[in-house]
Amino acid sequence: MSEILDLLATIGRLLRAENVLILCHKNPDGDTIGTAAALMHALKQLGKEAAVLCSDPIPSRYSYMGIELYNGQFDPGYIVAVDVASIQLFGDAVQEYVDRIDLCIDHHPSNAGYADAMLLDGSAAATCEIMYDVIQAMNVEITPQIADCLYTGLSTDTGCFLFSNTTAKSHLLAAKLMEAGARIQELNMILFESKSKERMAIERLALENLEYHFDERCALIYLTREQIAATGVSPNELEDITSLPRKIEGVQVGITLRQLPGASYKISVRTTAQVDACAIARRLGGGGHARAAGCELEGNLENAKAAILAEVERELKKADEQAAQEQE
Amino acid sequence: MSEILDLLATIGRLLRAENVLILCHKNPDGDTIGTAAALMHALKQLGKEAAVLCSDPIPSRYSYMGIELYNGQFDPGYIVAVDVASIQLFGDAVQEYVDRIDLCIDHHPSNAGYADAMLLDGSAAATCEIMYDVIQAMNVEITPQIADCLYTGLSTDTGCFLFSNTTAKSHLLAAKLMEAGARIQELNMILFESKSKERMAIERLALENLEYHFDERCALIYLTREQIAATGVSPNELEDITSLPRKIEGVQVGITLRQLPGASYKISVRTTAQVDACAIARRLGGGGHARAAGCELEGNLENAKAAILAEVERELKKADEQAAQEQE
Repeated sequence: MSEILDLLATIGRLLRAENVLILCHKNPDGDTIGTAAALMHALKQLGKEAAVLCSDPIPSRYSYMGIELYNGQFDPGYIVAVDVASIQLFGDAVQEYVDRIDLCIDHHPSNAGYADAMLLDGSAAATCEIMYDVIQAMNVEITPQIADCLYTGLSTDTGCFLFSNTTAKSHLLAAKLMEAGARIQELNMILFESKSKERMAIERLALENLEYHFDERCALIYLTREQIAATGVSPNELEDITSLPRKIEGVQVGITLRQLPGASYKISVRTTAQVDACAIARRLGGGGHARAAGCELEGNLENAKAAILAEVERELKKADEQAAQEQE
Repeated sequence: MSEILDLLATIGRLLRAENVLILCHKNPDGDTIGTAAALMHALKQLGKEAAVLCSDPIPSRYSYMGIELYNGQFDPGYIVAVDVASIQLFGDAVQEYVDRIDLCIDHHPSNAGYADAMLLDGSAAATCEIMYDVIQAMNVEITPQIADCLYTGLSTDTGCFLFSNTTAKSHLLAAKLMEAGARIQELNMILFESKSKERMAIERLALENLEYHFDERCALIYLTREQIAATGVSPNELEDITSLPRKIEGVQVGITLRQLPGASYKISVRTTAQVDACAIARRLGGGGHARAAGCELEGNLENAKAAILAEVERELKKADEQAAQEQE
């Protein structure tokens, strides 16, 4: 297990470190990249060598961060992982470093404690929130570019201040980053006002296959493996689609059926507070959380639909009974 | 023209007012309703009578605001309009009051000055930002319900802190409202994570009719009057659709053609910073802003498409020439 550090101990280590290698998680998102980039720029301001390594390419939309990738330009003297909850999330290209990580900075409460030392704040909406405090404590200037990097992680991990992890501290930090010069107009355009052609194509197919059941309290979409392959949509974008049916007004259960390459169906269940998504998925051999769960069903589309809809109906009835009891 | 008040003069009037009638604009949005509700609750805390009047029904999703509607329960002693830029925006049911409005509180720089006195801050992202200062200055407690009302206007007018009108002050206010008890998790769900069936249906049609032109630098959607009528979509939701084609990655010009009841086509032009939307629309007899403009064209779909695409092509070429010049 990691030695648990506070902010002061963390900056003590970072200020003594030289030739710092910063590791992101694979399939990198705005928070791991933004945190890494902000730390890299801060360390460079202090005259240190620093560079970033990630198993997967950094998506081009993040080019404004000015990240210097690690390609052997120095011998790593100190290794820091940011926003990486477990060793499995590093990916192949980073494997040679995973058993000698000096410091992990993270906001995932589930962090496995794989690093020698760790600065963890499970209440932070994004690791970028923690990194802001680290950079401030190191007495490094928050330049407009550092502000851009930190705003990226903060805004992407909160869905632009929409998700339930958003706190008053998140909004306060956004205000500070804007005052430090974060170009939120340009960044919001890049991060939130842009969808790929493939994403548009899969949304079209999903909407074409949209069905309502049980007095429109359940909305269901399905996507066959041929449809998914034809659009060329990325796994992340496909995962996003599962939130679509539940968003429809009045819908309490949103179901997404995605055919896997082996022809079975992966089923995602999203519910409003009144209905237990986990109960629906569990009875079909799956599991998850109260409002987001899933399972996998063999067989053809009609069978998979019939099986999941039977469980949805059962859970809707249970929700009705409970509502009636509460009224009594 | 209105007498221009500062914050102190405004609260002086409100603290002396009795039997306050608060007017919203027609087709009410979160900001006019949230501002009106917050003011109503604040005045009631001070022991005054206050009620809200709007030409159109308050959408049921705003029921958490606990608005008391005006139905003659008192004789109006002081009339306040909130978030209403001009007299035309009041609607029929409010007509008898429009020539005796004592005070207007607004954030639209274009406000026509129809009220006797006005508190205007054109830099505020939402009228709710101004109302927060008013309520604070009146020394009224920001209860969780008032915080909910103000968060509603703040978040809806900024598209949940996404639009370019969002300022550091907007984020600071969001933090303060959360600390005052605003239930942002529930509110964000109601305000941003919910779309009507009709909206889903029109999105489906729009995506089915999606075309790419000029190496996918232009995306175009069209909706016939039959399609629009068949979905039963509201004018607001239809207007929202016009932002869809421009959101596609790599698209610099998004065009939406909507057939009007008279069979002509209403064309919306949305562009990224490099392309002048207004220039495109102006040459077809329309107008607007640099990144959002529109025009109306007679004739059938093919003719309307050909006309607008010719102008799009011309403007894309101009953008290329300008980019080339800047490189030199």
